[in-house]
Amino acid sequence: MKKSREILIVGSVAFDDVETPAGRRERSLGGSAQYFAVGASHFAPVRLVAVVGDDFPEERVAALAARGVDLNGLERVPGQTFFWRGRYGADFGDAETLDTRLNVFADFAPKVPAAYKHTPYVFLGNIHPALQEQVVDQVVEPKLIGCDTMNFWISGEPAALAQLLRKINLLIINEGEARLLSGEKNLFKAVAKIKEMGPQLVIIKKGAHGAALFHPEGVFFVPAFPLSALQDPTGAGDTFASGVMGYIAQRDSLDFKTFKMALVYGTAMASFACEGFSFDRVAPLTQDEIHARAEQLKAMMSLD
Amino acid sequence: MKKSREILIVGSVAFDDVETPAGRRERSLGGSAQYFAVGASHFAPVRLVAVVGDDFPEERVAALAARGVDLNGLERVPGQTFFWRGRYGADFGDAETLDTRLNVFADFAPKVPAAYKHTPYVFLGNIHPALQEQVVDQVVEPKLIGCDTMNFWISGEPAALAQLLRKINLLIINEGEARLLSGEKNLFKAVAKIKEMGPQLVIIKKGAHGAALFHPEGVFFVPAFPLSALQDPTGAGDTFASGVMGYIAQRDSLDFKTFKMALVYGTAMASFACEGFSFDRVAPLTQDEIHARAEQLKAMMSLD
Repeated sequence: MKKSREILIVGSVAFDDVETPAGRRERSLGGSAQYFAVGASHFAPVRLVAVVGDDFPEERVAALAARGVDLNGLERVPGQTFFWRGRYGADFGDAETLDTRLNVFADFAPKVPAAYKHTPYVFLGNIHPALQEQVVDQVVEPKLIGCDTMNFWISGEPAALAQLLRKINLLIINEGEARLLSGEKNLFKAVAKIKEMGPQLVIIKKGAHGAALFHPEGVFFVPAFPLSALQDPTGAGDTFASGVMGYIAQRDSLDFKTFKMALVYGTAMASFACEGFSFDRVAPLTQDEIHARAEQLKAMMSLD
Repeated sequence: MKKSREILIVGSVAFDDVETPAGRRERSLGGSAQYFAVGASHFAPVRLVAVVGDDFPEERVAALAARGVDLNGLERVPGQTFFWRGRYGADFGDAETLDTRLNVFADFAPKVPAAYKHTPYVFLGNIHPALQEQVVDQVVEPKLIGCDTMNFWISGEPAALAQLLRKINLLIINEGEARLLSGEKNLFKAVAKIKEMGPQLVIIKKGAHGAALFHPEGVFFVPAFPLSALQDPTGAGDTFASGVMGYIAQRDSLDFKTFKMALVYGTAMASFACEGFSFDRVAPLTQDEIHARAEQLKAMMSLD
């Protein structure tokens, strides 16, 4: 029997107006699901569940399809595609959101096509936890359900989020989100509380300070890849998740060693994401470039 | 010929009044040189150059001597010992200094005893860069001169610090200090500039985010040891440096692999420092405890 290693991603597909200290870009391609799909397509076949408006260019759909992204789950409805406008300060820290227009995303109810229902690896991009849960309820016997969220849902939709967290395996969030979700300042206490909420696998993103994995078999840290020329951090978190989930799907294993390497690949992918606007740097990556950066990271952690 | 692995430490010996979210302590034993001497004494013979007042207890001097710390360089003069009072906020971040009384330290001019002049490993604790330089000028053919400093000297004594930096090999400072010293926000650019100022070995302390080594042969990262019960971070930086310098002196090598392991041991020692007030936790450590924690840290970085 052929091994199935597909990844289903649900999330947003968007146009972004982005301003960073390195420049600005209008109607840049973005959205959590699009960032994830482009990144993960370097590792495994990707199935996309999302919605776009009739302003979304056909050639962009074709470009995703050419990457091996299955678009049967991409709805196209009348209206405008989700739009976000944001600006990064001099330190490239959290973006200031200047405008958000949900547009066609406002009525989005994710429908998982019949052909996607047995997808083994599922990632829930950062959208309303009730929508994320709708996807969980439509897939059959997945091997791993990974999930992202953000302060907006942690504070605004705690009940829906709590219900979702009981149904997922892996939560990938940043340090501040982990503290807000758990009410604990100490990261290790925060993760212990999050595990009580459901997910037995937790990955904490620490930006320039790397990432930490909390696996049933142990804890593992990876430093961030040192970047000298940041361009645009938009989508770095989704691209990180795409490397993590992509590597796991490719290896088709949930063991500790696979997760460790997945963190290395996620970190490598996130570093590429920051080196260009949109996924300019990520989309054309070769396997050699990805492996070379992962090897550079491994060298920075090696005691030999 | 017998290999010489002694470490000379110059810095402050102090009494501290400390308040942290975990409690408070009055007339706690402290000061950069005392913290360093206690930590490093687990690795190599230590020679102390410092000054105390006539209020410093004889039994404390005897306790340091019992640890193998050579006290021929400890001056005792009429007056009060250096005193610092500080308070840590809820996040155990940077301490707020409430009072500093230099006392006998105000007239300190470090004198390196004749028997110390050929000490191979030298560490300059965080005192005025002109005093640090006086020590450099008194030692003969050291193998390694390590140095700490702080924002106060970086901003207040840039010329004296610049002169000192040309004479040292290893600078151990925190991220904020590296940015202030270099004028660069990006850590890697900051370190490149610092290397132009003199030291070819730079270690950046990142607190809860671990530490980074910049060695001529490469870059290396170590995560912080996860602490669930912080007591008092006072002296953690000096104790980190004591583990780094102590391990290097014990191995009597400056190669990349030795420096990497030195970072692991420095991180282990710093974690112990935070687990108790003063050096309550560090002083009674056994070799087994130190090695066990270093092994735990290594496991958190291992891809196997």
